[in-house]
Amino acid sequence: MPARYLSFRCSVPWLILLLETLFLICSFFSFPDVRNVYSPSDFYPEFQDVNHVVIFGFGFFLIVLRRYGFSSTGFNFLLIVLGVQCSVLVEDLLVYLRVEENEVGMRRTADCSLWSLAKAVVSMTAVVISTGAVLGKANPVQLIVMTLVELIVFYASRWINKTLLEVPDHLTLLHVHLFGAYFGLAVTSRFPEPPPGLDKSRSSPKSDLFSMLGTVFLWVFWPSFNSILADSKNEAVLNTYFALAVSAVAAFMLSALTSKDGKFRMTHIHSAVLAGGVTISYTAHSIQHPWIAMILGLLGSVITILGSHCLQRCFNLALKLQDTSGVHFTFGLPAVLGAVAAVVLRVIEEGIEEQWNNLSSLGYLIFVDVGAFCQTISTALITGLITGLILNIKLLKAVHVSKYFDDQFYWEFPHLSAGF
Amino acid sequence: MPARYLSFRCSVPWLILLLETLFLICSFFSFPDVRNVYSPSDFYPEFQDVNHVVIFGFGFFLIVLRRYGFSSTGFNFLLIVLGVQCSVLVEDLLVYLRVEENEVGMRRTADCSLWSLAKAVVSMTAVVISTGAVLGKANPVQLIVMTLVELIVFYASRWINKTLLEVPDHLTLLHVHLFGAYFGLAVTSRFPEPPPGLDKSRSSPKSDLFSMLGTVFLWVFWPSFNSILADSKNEAVLNTYFALAVSAVAAFMLSALTSKDGKFRMTHIHSAVLAGGVTISYTAHSIQHPWIAMILGLLGSVITILGSHCLQRCFNLALKLQDTSGVHFTFGLPAVLGAVAAVVLRVIEEGIEEQWNNLSSLGYLIFVDVGAFCQTISTALITGLITGLILNIKLLKAVHVSKYFDDQFYWEFPHLSAGF
Amino acid sequence: MPARYLSFRCSVPWLILLLETLFLICSFFSFPDVRNVYSPSDFYPEFQDVNHVVIFGFGFFLIVLRRYGFSSTGFNFLLIVLGVQCSVLVEDLLVYLRVEENEVGMRRTADCSLWSLAKAVVSMTAVVISTGAVLGKANPVQLIVMTLVELIVFYASRWINKTLLEVPDHLTLLHVHLFGAYFGLAVTSRFPEPPPGLDKSRSSPKSDLFSMLGTVFLWVFWPSFNSILADSKNEAVLNTYFALAVSAVAAFMLSALTSKDGKFRMTHIHSAVLAGGVTISYTAHSIQHPWIAMILGLLGSVITILGSHCLQRCFNLALKLQDTSGVHFTFGLPAVLGAVAAVVLRVIEEGIEEQWNNLSSLGYLIFVDVGAFCQTISTALITGLITGLILNIKLLKAVHVSKYFDDQFYWEFPHLSAGF
Repeated sequence: MPARYLSFRCSVPWLILLLETLFLICSFFSFPDVRNVYSPSDFYPEFQDVNHVVIFGFGFFLIVLRRYGFSSTGFNFLLIVLGVQCSVLVEDLLVYLRVEENEVGMRRTADCSLWSLAKAVVSMTAVVISTGAVLGKANPVQLIVMTLVELIVFYASRWINKTLLEVPDHLTLLHVHLFGAYFGLAVTSRFPEPPPGLDKSRSSPKSDLFSMLGTVFLWVFWPSFNSILADSKNEAVLNTYFALAVSAVAAFMLSALTSKDGKFRMTHIHSAVLAGGVTISYTAHSIQHPWIAMILGLLGSVITILGSHCLQRCFNLALKLQDTSGVHFTFGLPAVLGAVAAVVLRVIEEGIEEQWNNLSSLGYLIFVDVGAFCQTISTALITGLITGLILNIKLLKAVHVSKYFDDQFYWEFPHLSAGF
Repeated sequence: MPARYLSFRCSVPWLILLLETLFLICSFFSFPDVRNVYSPSDFYPEFQDVNHVVIFGFGFFLIVLRRYGFSSTGFNFLLIVLGVQCSVLVEDLLVYLRVEENEVGMRRTADCSLWSLAKAVVSMTAVVISTGAVLGKANPVQLIVMTLVELIVFYASRWINKTLLEVPDHLTLLHVHLFGAYFGLAVTSRFPEPPPGLDKSRSSPKSDLFSMLGTVFLWVFWPSFNSILADSKNEAVLNTYFALAVSAVAAFMLSALTSKDGKFRMTHIHSAVLAGGVTISYTAHSIQHPWIAMILGLLGSVITILGSHCLQRCFNLALKLQDTSGVHFTFGLPAVLGAVAAVVLRVIEEGIEEQWNNLSSLGYLIFVDVGAFCQTISTALITGLITGLILNIKLLKAVHVSKYFDDQFYWEFPHLSAGF
Repeated sequence: MPARYLSFRCSVPWLILLLETLFLICSFFSFPDVRNVYSPSDFYPEFQDVNHVVIFGFGFFLIVLRRYGFSSTGFNFLLIVLGVQCSVLVEDLLVYLRVEENEVGMRRTADCSLWSLAKAVVSMTAVVISTGAVLGKANPVQLIVMTLVELIVFYASRWINKTLLEVPDHLTLLHVHLFGAYFGLAVTSRFPEPPPGLDKSRSSPKSDLFSMLGTVFLWVFWPSFNSILADSKNEAVLNTYFALAVSAVAAFMLSALTSKDGKFRMTHIHSAVLAGGVTISYTAHSIQHPWIAMILGLLGSVITILGSHCLQRCFNLALKLQDTSGVHFTFGLPAVLGAVAAVVLRVIEEGIEEQWNNLSSLGYLIFVDVGAFCQTISTALITGLITGLILNIKLLKAVHVSKYFDDQFYWEFPHLSAGF
C-alpha cells in the first residue's frame, strides 16, 4: 500500500513540526529566565528517578507483543518528550493567565524549574498508561492527538478538583493512574476489534524478558514515584516498599492458584507486582502502621489477578473491549481500590480523632473525596469515549485491523532480508 | 505428569500464604508506628542502590542458562521480597525479645526504618548467592524453605560473632558472600547430578547478553554495596572502585591466557569482573593506599579464574558438586581470600602501630578474626548439608533430573505453540 | 587459522599485564594516602551517573551489529577500566611533575578523589566514541594501543588549551565529543574497507532493541553528564533536558521525512536523540533562556539526520570512510555545531553587556574560542591519522577484512554447537 505510506509521511512529521514550533513560540514568550528560577539543588536525584520510571520503566514494560518492540519503546519515548514539553507550557500558560492567582507569588519563581518538570513527567504517566490500552492499534498521529487531548483534559480535571473541591494541588496528581487507565479503556473501546487468535497479539519469551526488565525497574523506582510529591517522604517510601513487597509475593501465590496446572504466568506477575504500588499511591504518605500498607498491597494484588481472570472472560467480551497490555487490571482496578481505601482510612482516622462527634464534618470529607474520585473517573470515561470517536475519523487514517501489532508498518527493517 | 503439576499447585501458594499471614500478624503486633521511626532523609539513594544490586543486578546476572531466564529473574525476585519481609521481622522480634538489650534504646526507634530494610536487603545477598548454586535444580518450594532456613541460620551465625567474638554489628554482615557461597555449595551437593552434556545446562548468546547486563549493573553498583555499612564511605567507595577496575582488567587477561585458542570466555568475564569487589569487601573501609586495593583486586581475579579451571576439572568431579552458576569461584574463593587479607592487613597495621611490642593483643586480634571466619564457614557448610538433606525429603517433591534447568516446568508458555 | 589464535594469545594478555604492572608501580609511588583525600561526601551520586553513562549506556548503545554484541559491551568495558586507571595516573603524574603548578595546593589534596576519578571517566568518553568508529574492525590489541595514545593526546590537547589559550580547566573537558569523533574517523580511514553488502555489518531487531536500551539510558543520564563539571548545575540540567527533548521529537519528525515510505528508521532515532545533548554540552551551563536550548537541540537533530543522509551517500564514499556506528553525525557534527553556537552566543552576550564598545576584547574572545576549537579538531585529525597508520603495522596483527564484525573471532562460543 504505497499510497498509505506516502500519506503517513504527509501527516506525522508536519504534525510534530507544528507542535514543536508552537512550543518554541510559547516558550519564547512565556518562559522566565532560568536565572530567576529557584529549585532546591538536591531535587535532581528524585527528578531522575521519575524520569527513569516513565522513560525506561514504562518503555520496556510495554514490550509485551512479539512484533511490537520498536514501537513500544519508540513511541512511548516520542509521546513523553512531546507531552512533557506540552504540559510544562500548559502549566506556564495557566500561571500567565493568572488562573492560579492564589499561588502566583510562589509559583512564578518555580516556573520551569525541575519541580515543574517533575510534575509534568508525573502527569505523563496517565498518557503512558492509556497508550498501553491502545498498544498496537493506534498509529503515531492518533497517539499524538490522544496525548495532547488527554493532557489538557487531565489538567482540566485537576483544576476542577482543586478549585471546586479544594483538594490540595499535589493530591490531585495522584489520580494519574485512575485517569490514565479509564481514559485508555474508553478510547480503546472505539477501535475495531482484532480477529481472535491473532499470532501477533501474543508475547514471545524474548519480549517477556524485556518486559520483565521494565517491570523490575518500575518496581524498584516506585517508592520514588509515590514519594516525590509527598511531604513526609520517609513514610511514603517505607509504606510503598512494604505494599510492593507483599503485592509481589501475593502475585506469585495467586498466579499459581489461578492458572492451569498451577504454573506461574508471566503476565500475572508483570501486572500484580505493581498493583501494590498503585493501590498505596493515595495513602502512602499518611499510613501510620506498616501492616495497613501490607494489607493494601495484598488486596491490590488479589483484585488485579482476579480481575484479569473475570474481566477477560466476561466483562471485556460483553463490552467488546480489547485492552492490549491489561491496563484495566494493572492500573485501573488497584487505583479504584486505593481511592476507596483512602476514603475509609481517612474517615476512620478523623473519626477516632474527634471521637465520632463531628459527623457533619466527616460527611463533608467523604463527599469531597468521593466527589473528586467520581469526577475524575467520569471525566476520563466521557472524554475518553469522545477522543476515541475523534481518533477514528478519516483524517487520522486509522490502521486497518490486519496491520495491528506490527512494527513493520511503522519502522524500516533493513535487516529483514537477512532473516529475523 | 498432571499429578505433579497438581501437587505443585497445592504446595507453593499455600506455603506463601502461610508465610505472608505470619508476617502480617507479626507486623501487626511488633512494628512500631512509622511516625516513631527516624531515619536520615538522605539515606534513600543508598538504599535504592542496594535494592538495584540485589533485585536488578542479581536477577539478570543469574540468566546464565538458555531456558531458565523466566525462573532466574522471577524466583530471584520472589525470594527477595519474601526474605526481606522475613528478615525485617526476625530483627524486630529479636529487639522485642530483648536479645540485643545493650542497643535497644538506639534500635527501638530505628526499627522498621530504611536502615533496617537496607540491612535486610544486604542479608538477602547470601540467599541470592546460594540460589545461584542450586539454580535450575530446586523447585520454588525448596527455594522458599532454603531462604527461610538460610536467613535464620545467618542471623544465628551473626549473633554468635557479635556476642561471643564481639565483632561489631556492621562487620558481621560482611560475611554475607562467604556464608552464601558455602551454604549454597553444601546444599547443591545433596542434589542428584544432572547427566553430563545436557543441552539445557548451557548458555546461549542471548542469555549471555542479558547476564552481561546484570554483571555491568552489579559492577557499577558494587561500591555502593561495599560502602553502605561503612563509617568512612569515601574510602570504601574509592578502594572498591580500584579493586573492581583491576579485577576487570585481569579478568580479560586471564581469560585469554587460560581458554582454548586464546579467546575470551564470557563466563570468565562474568565471574572475575566481580571478584575484586568481593575480595575487598572486608577491608574497603580501612585500606589506606589504593595500591593495596589494586593488588587485592588482582589476586581476587586470579583466584577466581584459576579456581574455575582447577575446581571444575578435579575438585567438583571428586566431590560430585555441580555448581550451576559458579558461585564457588565467583563469591566463595574471593571471599576466603578477602577474609585472609583482612586478617593480614589488620595484623600488620596494628603491629606497626604498636611496634610489635604487644604481641598478645595481636594474637587475640588474629584469634577473633580467624574465629569469626571459621565459625561462619563451618556453620554455613554444616547447616547447608542439613538443609540439602531436608530439601530432598519426599514432602517437598524434588524435581526429577530430566526436568532440571527448564522454565516450562514452572511457567506457562502461551506463546510456545507459535514457535520459540 | 590456529596460528593466528596462538599469536593473539601471545599479545593481548601480556600487553594488559604490562600495563597493569605499570599502573601498580606508578600508584605505589605517586598516590597519596586515601586519608589525605578530601572530596565532598555528596559527590558520589553524580560520579555514579557518569559511570552509568560510560559503562552501561555506551556499552549497550554500541550493540548495533548483529554478531558483535559480546565484543561491543565487553571491549568497551575493558577499555574503560584500563583507560580510567591510565588517566588517573597521568593526571597524578602531571601533578607530581609540577606541570600544573598554579593549582597544586588545591589539587594535591584532591588527587585520587572521586572528583579526579569522575574527570577520568569523562575523558574516557572520547575513547568510547572513537571505538564506535572502528567498531568491529580493530582487534583488542589495536583498541588498547588506541586508547592509550588517544588519552595521552587528549591530555596534551587539553594542556595546550589550558596553558596557551587560558581556557578554564573544566571547559577543556567539554571538547571530549569533538575530539573523540574526529580522532575515531581519522583512525578508521586507515583501515581497509569491508566489502559492501556484508551481512554481518547490519543490525538485527534484537541488537537494535539492546541498542535502544543503551540509548534510553544515555538520554536519561545526559543531563548528569553535562552538569557534572558545571558551576551552575541547575541551569545545565534544565537546558540539557530541554535540548534533549526537542532533539528527540525532531529525530522522529526528520526520520519520517527522510526515509523511504515515510517510516521511522531506528538508527536515525538512536543518533538524533542524543544530538541535542552533544550540541548543548558547551553552553548548557550559561544559556539563560530555555528557548535557545530548544533551538540548539532542534538544530543538532537536523544536522545529524541530514548529515547521515548526505555523508553516507557522497562524502564517506569519496573519502572511503566507513564509520560503523555513525559517530561522525552522532557526535562529530553536533559537537562542531555546538562549538560554533558557543562562540556566537558568547559574543552576543558579551557584546550586549558592553554595548558593542569594546570590540577588541570581543575579537580576543572569538580568537580564543575558535583557536581552542581548531587546535582540538586538527590535533584529533592529525594524531588520529598517525595512530591509524601505527595500528596497521604488522606487529599488531590487524584483523583480515573477512573477519570483521564477528564475535566468534574473539570469544568462545561453547553454545554454538547447539544452534544459535
